[in-house]
Amino acid sequence: MISDDPQYYLKGVLEQNRRILSKTITLIESSLPAHQKLARVIIDHLLPHTGKAVRLGITGVPGVGKSTFIENFGIRLLQKGHRVAVLAVDPSSTLSGGSVLADKTRMEKLSARKRAFIRPSPSGGTLGGVTRKTRETLFVCEAAGFDVLIIETVGVGQSEIAVASMVDFFLVLMLAGAGDELQGIKKGILEVADALAINKADGDNIEKAKKAKSDYEAALNLLCPPSYVWKPPVLTCSALEMTGIDDIWETILTHRKKLITTGELEIKRKKQAVDWMWSLLDEGLKERFYRNNEIQKRLPKITKDVGKGITSPTIAANELLFLLDDG
Amino acid sequence: MISDDPQYYLKGVLEQNRRILSKTITLIESSLPAHQKLARVIIDHLLPHTGKAVRLGITGVPGVGKSTFIENFGIRLLQKGHRVAVLAVDPSSTLSGGSVLADKTRMEKLSARKRAFIRPSPSGGTLGGVTRKTRETLFVCEAAGFDVLIIETVGVGQSEIAVASMVDFFLVLMLAGAGDELQGIKKGILEVADALAINKADGDNIEKAKKAKSDYEAALNLLCPPSYVWKPPVLTCSALEMTGIDDIWETILTHRKKLITTGELEIKRKKQAVDWMWSLLDEGLKERFYRNNEIQKRLPKITKDVGKGITSPTIAANELLFLLDDG
Repeated sequence: MISDDPQYYLKGVLEQNRRILSKTITLIESSLPAHQKLARVIIDHLLPHTGKAVRLGITGVPGVGKSTFIENFGIRLLQKGHRVAVLAVDPSSTLSGGSVLADKTRMEKLSARKRAFIRPSPSGGTLGGVTRKTRETLFVCEAAGFDVLIIETVGVGQSEIAVASMVDFFLVLMLAGAGDELQGIKKGILEVADALAINKADGDNIEKAKKAKSDYEAALNLLCPPSYVWKPPVLTCSALEMTGIDDIWETILTHRKKLITTGELEIKRKKQAVDWMWSLLDEGLKERFYRNNEIQKRLPKITKDVGKGITSPTIAANELLFLLDDG
Repeated sequence: MISDDPQYYLKGVLEQNRRILSKTITLIESSLPAHQKLARVIIDHLLPHTGKAVRLGITGVPGVGKSTFIENFGIRLLQKGHRVAVLAVDPSSTLSGGSVLADKTRMEKLSARKRAFIRPSPSGGTLGGVTRKTRETLFVCEAAGFDVLIIETVGVGQSEIAVASMVDFFLVLMLAGAGDELQGIKKGILEVADALAINKADGDNIEKAKKAKSDYEAALNLLCPPSYVWKPPVLTCSALEMTGIDDIWETILTHRKKLITTGELEIKRKKQAVDWMWSLLDEGLKERFYRNNEIQKRLPKITKDVGKGITSPTIAANELLFLLDDG
């Protein structure tokens, strides 16, 4: 049953009631207009209860050991007294099918803990829809007292750029000595990386990882202009053996301290708020466009014609905008 | 005087009349609705006369020797029998002021040639506006018989991503042994690079350039997933001494041949046409938004409030979308 009383959700979330937190997120993920309206009211009331948490983005391609990393990193943070929420962004998960089920059996140790909360990708929707829901879920979890929020992405799409616009620190997991084909990390992702960590630096792999570390440092130096505020370091770790994990957390805290001291964190978050407004506006404008009956009838054919070169892009766009004014 | 007869422009452009070509571009760059409408009619009629030219994007930060490179590269292409048009994209040029004047005195040798055509950045407007005008100018130049089109960007912004969506090949100019601060090339740009060329590989610099070449090759291998169709090479050249310039042209032709053989070029261009339609739609939707009186009144204050944290992004976006429906 879904209650339509905002107070029910607000009270539940602020009292750190996990069941009501889950229900609130379900509401956020619902595409029913009534649910969305209710969700907006809830989020607006919860926003004043957010702002203190550490917001992290973690990405890495399949095979890099991301689940093990996040699980053991999360458990370490619990040991340090934190409350940890993990949210996944994977717009492809509905296409590939299995991901949601897989998420439930992943991170079993972490998900069994009381002070941890794991939420798989919202199912359905475009990248824009998924990231909007993730952003709103982030704030709700923060209001529910989680003080470290981890947003996990798969490192192969554009999700990372979107996630970077909602976190304080973005960590990219890599492997040592894996062929390029195995890495597959998109170049654009490095643009938003605050640190690289070479995982699986254990056993016979330690020397390879050290070599990879210095290779990546050289590559980043060559290809990436440094910021005056922060130069993304390359770290090594073994999620399996729990080595290097504390260093990564220390790096995140150092980064945080630096950004707070220079006032950068506040600026970053204010910018993120304005960007969020713009992405909501953008989404709203597109929704109105797609909702239009005339557009719905005409769009598939005209897109096809543009692809085939039968209609020019300028004629097509004008015709569609004209339909919108008319319809 | 600006004629309002499309035939005047169509005939002039197809007859390769430079004066009328310039006038047509002025029309494209005009923000007057009547001019824009006329420009759209002209472009739609010219599109069937395009498609055969080699479309290149060339970028590099100030100091890399971009003007000299494009000038001497252009002259070499003229010697090979080509007709070359160079268009600049620099949305910052109106802010920095001097760029348009500088453009006129730049590339003097090339601009004096009959079979070359150089057009500085359209003044004014957002990045979106500048790139839209550049794309349309590209097609008009192609219809006017220019068979190599070079779009030049400054390598520090988002223009490169936009330009990559309208060219066949994207070349990034770099320097050997320059500190990172001097390079300043955005990481995201490498995502769209089809080749890197290390310029100023002359005199004492030759050894440094060779070293830089292998460093960049290693860095690209580490950080960039290879495509099955094309692996971006790292070349060296000296625009000043005209060495390595022919190799770059050969690389462009090899890439072209490969993309034509595999059918990739056709797919790429069809995708670019559909992307173009979407960016026009996007721009059209935003224009309608900004044109609305109620929005114009409310937007500055509400954006400020979101930045200050007084209003939440969700409330702000909803209020603005509501105003749009109402107004």
